[in-house]
Amino acid sequence: MTLTVLFSARPALWDDYRTVLPAALSAEGIAARLVRMADPAEVDYIVYAPNDDLTDFAPFTRAKAVLSLFAGVERIVGNPTLTQPLCRMVDPALCEGMVEWVTAQVLRHHLWLDRNIGRRAWVQEAPPLARDRRVTMLGLGELGLAAARMLRALNFRVTGWSRSPKTDAGFPTFHGEDGLKPALEGAEIVVTLLPDTPATRGILDARSLGWLAPGAAVINPGRGPLIEDAALLAALDAGQVGHATLDVFHTEPLPPEHPFWARADVTVSPHIAAVSRPATAATVIAANIRRAEAGETLLHRVDRARGY
Amino acid sequence: MTLTVLFSARPALWDDYRTVLPAALSAEGIAARLVRMADPAEVDYIVYAPNDDLTDFAPFTRAKAVLSLFAGVERIVGNPTLTQPLCRMVDPALCEGMVEWVTAQVLRHHLWLDRNIGRRAWVQEAPPLARDRRVTMLGLGELGLAAARMLRALNFRVTGWSRSPKTDAGFPTFHGEDGLKPALEGAEIVVTLLPDTPATRGILDARSLGWLAPGAAVINPGRGPLIEDAALLAALDAGQVGHATLDVFHTEPLPPEHPFWARADVTVSPHIAAVSRPATAATVIAANIRRAEAGETLLHRVDRARGY
Ligand SMILES: NC(=O)c1ccc[n+]([C@@H]2O[C@H](COP(=O)([O-])OP(=O)(O)OC[C@H]3O[C@@H](n4cnc5c(N)ncnc54)[C@H](OP(=O)(O)O)[C@@H]3O)[C@@H](O)[C@H]2O)c1
Ligand SMILES: NC(=O)c1ccc[n+]([C@@H]2O[C@H](COP(=O)([O-])OP(=O)(O)OC[C@H]3O[C@@H](n4cnc5c(N)ncnc54)[C@H](OP(=O)(O)O)[C@@H]3O)[C@@H](O)[C@H]2O)c1
Repeated sequence: MTLTVLFSARPALWDDYRTVLPAALSAEGIAARLVRMADPAEVDYIVYAPNDDLTDFAPFTRAKAVLSLFAGVERIVGNPTLTQPLCRMVDPALCEGMVEWVTAQVLRHHLWLDRNIGRRAWVQEAPPLARDRRVTMLGLGELGLAAARMLRALNFRVTGWSRSPKTDAGFPTFHGEDGLKPALEGAEIVVTLLPDTPATRGILDARSLGWLAPGAAVINPGRGPLIEDAALLAALDAGQVGHATLDVFHTEPLPPEHPFWARADVTVSPHIAAVSRPATAATVIAANIRRAEAGETLLHRVDRARGY
Repeated sequence: MTLTVLFSARPALWDDYRTVLPAALSAEGIAARLVRMADPAEVDYIVYAPNDDLTDFAPFTRAKAVLSLFAGVERIVGNPTLTQPLCRMVDPALCEGMVEWVTAQVLRHHLWLDRNIGRRAWVQEAPPLARDRRVTMLGLGELGLAAARMLRALNFRVTGWSRSPKTDAGFPTFHGEDGLKPALEGAEIVVTLLPDTPATRGILDARSLGWLAPGAAVINPGRGPLIEDAALLAALDAGQVGHATLDVFHTEPLPPEHPFWARADVTVSPHIAAVSRPATAATVIAANIRRAEAGETLLHRVDRARGY
């Protein structure tokens, strides 16, 4: 029987996936037609990224899963019409990209690389070694843990924080609300790789930014709402935060009038820290459809109560 | 018997070493006095960094070794009065610092980090993954090999080059004069961690720069003379090299009138890629003196014929 797989995402993504996804499905031995429109009652799987066309999942009575093309699912997880299982994207290529970006940004701040870009004078300043640099990773999931491990390989003094306790991270970790203060205290560089959920929104606010080492760097490749912008701006003005490198924002693209644009102590990165690569992402989607058809459990299922 | 150890380096280094070096010596069980002046005939060991006071080693008839505080020994190795064994600095902390600096600079160029520093517009450009980025390391010694291994851990497509063949680098390597072209061909990022010797001087010239991928990045933390400045400037003008990040120069500090200063496509770093850390470097010196006193072979001996 030929499956009907609905592709519901913005048009640019269709160009990325229209050939690689059918190829990945047939490589998994799945007979399927990938369509951009269909009678909802006939759809077996929905491949999804946020878009305006699909907001009501109720008519998709036969759909066995909604498979997100994005790692972050904050724009769909709370949709009350969504009763089908939801899976997020866990793409090895996306993870590699994130590890590279986080490592690059942490090293950039650690070694003060910007200081010599465009400087016209010979000023020798030796930064400390990574082994004497305290880095805190907020979020120890697929991406945060991989990035933290690479930072450990570079000898950074890494501390981690997550919702549930971790025992084998290979570096000191804290968890839960009470763990946030000990995780952040004295951090010189903090990286946020948390999902956007009601529990994580505004996690970096005036209080928690105050726990960092004076002049700390904040690097946010997670989601914009993790940071209270006004608190970050105040912390930058006060020197409590020395620099912020932000890849994600409350509103994207970051509006031209936003104060972040004009500041030398904020680097605006246009949500490019890590992108899903169609070739590998299609494989992940196809493998999950094969699993579902074989009666196996779906991978990367989102827990709707937790929100990620 | 109390040894006489002459400390011959510029005054700033004396401040760094005057307490840590005696402490390291006594930790090794060596009775020694560390002095800045002595009757040459009474000196047992010379701790050395380039300076104007000591250019004639002939009167040091009793000295058992000259122990360099620097990793690069190009300013002493050819001194005809030097007949004593010469050891260079191999400091684990210096190596860590170099791995950090090289990794940072390679990632900076790989991910085009500079493009978003100070840019006031939302422009999404996704670089390739490290696994699709070709990096060539010239020099696979203490520093080059360690840096190349870290780049491999980040998935870069690393190729290496050295004088003698390597069999267990963990990535493709070439060696010798004939190996230079295959090592450099198509490289998008090249890092030079070679010593300055007659055989390596000007190794990056018009011909070899032409083998790189168009728009390649050149990163030189080795020694200034490895690069022919005029050839690099011409390659930058032609776009054959897209950017050069240089930590070392023919003349240091880089003279104010040098064209490198004024170019946006050259980053001048003031010889800070990796510094010896007195605490660890003193340990290395003390351990070598203990070895010599015990009749063991000296570590990190320089081969005067090779020049490094
Ligand atoms: N900028 C970009 O290009 C880009 C690309 C991809 C993803 N992202 C962002 O990166 C985020 C992380 O991705 P991922 O794949 O690593 O997600 P993940 O595997 O689901 O990991 C999420 C981590 O956050 C922790 N966490 C969640 N809620 C928490 C809470 N209330 N308190 C403390 N810790 C909490 C989780 O703790 P437990 O381990 O205890 O569950 C887990 O360690 C995504 O949600 C997305 O927003 C950004
Ligand atoms: N910028 C800074 O802050 C800084 C700090 C420290 C050091 N340095 C520089 O870094 C250099 C490398 O240090 P290291 O400790 O890694 O030195 P090393 O252990 O002596 O290694 C030198 C490497 O260069 C290779 N090499 C030498 N001559 C060659 C030739 N003619 N053709 C091809 N390969 C050649 C050697 O090949 P083999 O393996 O076959 O011997 C070896 O792999 C130092 O000499 C110094 O100039 C710079």
